[in-house]
Formats: sequence, structure tokens, C-alpha cells
Amino acid sequence: MAPAAPKSGDAIFASVDRVNAELFTLTYGAIVRQLLTDLEEVEEVNKQLDQMGYNIGVRLVDEFLAKSNVSRCVEFRETAEVIAKVGFKMFLGVTASVTNWDTEGTTCSLILEDNPLVDFVELPDTCQGLYYCNILSGVVRGALEMVSMKTEVTWLRDMLKGDDVFELQVKLLKQIPEEYPYKDDE
Amino acid sequence: MAPAAPKSGDAIFASVDRVNAELFTLTYGAIVRQLLTDLEEVEEVNKQLDQMGYNIGVRLVDEFLAKSNVSRCVEFRETAEVIAKVGFKMFLGVTASVTNWDTEGTTCSLILEDNPLVDFVELPDTCQGLYYCNILSGVVRGALEMVSMKTEVTWLRDMLKGDDVFELQVKLLKQIPEEYPYKDDE
Repeated sequence: MAPAAPKSGDAIFASVDRVNAELFTLTYGAIVRQLLTDLEEVEEVNKQLDQMGYNIGVRLVDEFLAKSNVSRCVEFRETAEVIAKVGFKMFLGVTASVTNWDTEGTTCSLILEDNPLVDFVELPDTCQGLYYCNILSGVVRGALEMVSMKTEVTWLRDMLKGDDVFELQVKLLKQIPEEYPYKDDE
Repeated sequence: MAPAAPKSGDAIFASVDRVNAELFTLTYGAIVRQLLTDLEEVEEVNKQLDQMGYNIGVRLVDEFLAKSNVSRCVEFRETAEVIAKVGFKMFLGVTASVTNWDTEGTTCSLILEDNPLVDFVELPDTCQGLYYCNILSGVVRGALEMVSMKTEVTWLRDMLKGDDVFELQVKLLKQIPEEYPYKDDE
């Protein structure tokens, strides 16, 4: 049987169960506040958010592959486009654009102009070192690791720090070729 | 001008910004795990989730009143129906039913058969005292307090503890009459 055609981010987003974005935003805000209270060091909060995101990304990738009919991408360039156009749309309801490729094709940036995580958020002066959206970089890193791409994911621009967009740099460190114990058509 | 007719929960839910339910579920799970690690005592985790929910409810009630065209309910009985049919739908995408009224009309139960918070969740033996969904009881309590109804909100049944539904008892403790500094049509 021929595989089903990949679905657009819009089509998938319309078909999945959803909850109110404001509830999500406020719930995420509650986590960050809790971590700031418990961990004290902003640097520790960044790490913890990234780790939470990583754990979530590892889980989400299954839903993503199941619902999107996207076949596993082998090429990093194609993968970045799929994350930006289908992944972000499917989970957050917004799309990102992909730019700033290096010549080797192993580093690029995802640009987000709209980000439901930060509605109503302002960073107090004491939290200027906080990467508020670090859960997102963790999700991307975790999801990519499950499709055998080890990456480093870094915020280059952050609207909460006065930049005009969010820019998330994704750098491919290592690609582990998958060994299938079975053939695709078995 | 005649006030706009109240919208149905379905209509409002279709009109608000939304995010993927699985992302929300996993993010909420990450909070609960974090609190269990940080606070150690399950009873403290219950309190903290309730407090987080309360803070969220206090904020959500504005969006709710703005988007739903529901006028502020004066009667507790009507309020309970609106929470169950419009509020839960608008934020979580599911509706609750209202039952088990006492004869005074001040205590009732909201019954949830479907609850996106608990997808994929199982309580380990060490967490049997945990009210995993305590953020919800906090949201209901916080939202009601903003419309001048002081309530006590308690889980009577919990699907994570083997019950067939979630039952949230809402008990009206005190209703503070609002004093308007202005007239409605000003």
C-alpha cells in the first residue's frame, strides 16, 4: 500500500485534541514561577525547563509521526522545515520559519514571531538571565534525538529581552544511522 | 443596546486560541513531577497545585466573561451549570454534568467523564494520597471567588484512584453581594 500523503500543519492541528491557549500559558507560567521559588538560581531554572522539555519532546515525537504521516526525515535540512511548519503548528498552533543556514547545512535558526508561551509575560529585573521558553528548546532537542539527530539548541533572540522575534538556533552535532531490525514492508 | 446572547461552550471553544492537548497534558505532568521532587510530602503537593489553580482561575475568569457573553450569574445553581457546560468546554474542551444537589441548593457535584489532564497518567503506589487534578479544583475556587462566591471544592471521586468518573464537589460557603460603584448602563 502506498503511504498516505503527509498532512499540512493546519490539517493536523485541526484534527488533534486541543485545550485553551490561555490556560496553557498560565499553567506554564505557574511552573516557571514555582521553579524560580524552589531553585533560586536562574541558571538552574533554565536547565530544569530544558530537561522538562526534553522529556516532553521524547514523548511528543510519537504523536507527531503518527498524526502527521510524515515519514522519518533522513536529511537535517528537511527535518528543520518539518519541525517549523508542521511540528510547531501541530503543538502550539503557530509556525516558524527556517533561516540562517550555515554552508555545511548543519546549523540553522527557527524564527518564531508569535509564541503563545509568553502572552502576558514580562521578565522582572531579577530574572534577566532567564530563558523563559527553554522548555521549547528542550522539546526540539528531545524530539530530534528520538529520530537519531543529536543537536544543540540555543536561543539567539528572545522577545522577552527586547528582540523583535524568537530565534532558536539548532545545530546538528551527530546523526546516528538507524539500524532496522526489520524491513519496512514487513 | 440589548446584550449579545450567551454563546455555547462549543462556539467559544472554536473561537479561542488553542494548543495541542497532549502538550498541555505532558507539561502539566512535568509540574506535578517537579513538585513531588521538590516538596516531598504529597499533602504539600496537593496544596501547591490547588494554589496554582486558584491563581489561574482568578485570571481566567476575565477571559471567560469577555468571550462567553455570559452575564455574571447571581444564582449559585445557574453558576454551576455555566461552569460545567461553558467553562470546562471553553478551557479544557470537555463538558461536565452537574448533579447531587443538596436541598438548600448550596452544594453540588461536577462530574467529569473525560479529563485531558490524566491521559497516560498512572499514580505510583507512593502517591496514592495525591490529588493529581488539584489544579482544577483551585481554578474553580479562584474563578468563583472573583464573581463573589466563596466556595470549598473537594474531590469525591477520582479515576486515577479507580473510580469511574471524576466528581468535584463544590460547596458555597458565602456569597458576597457586589456593590457597584456605577450603574450597569453607564
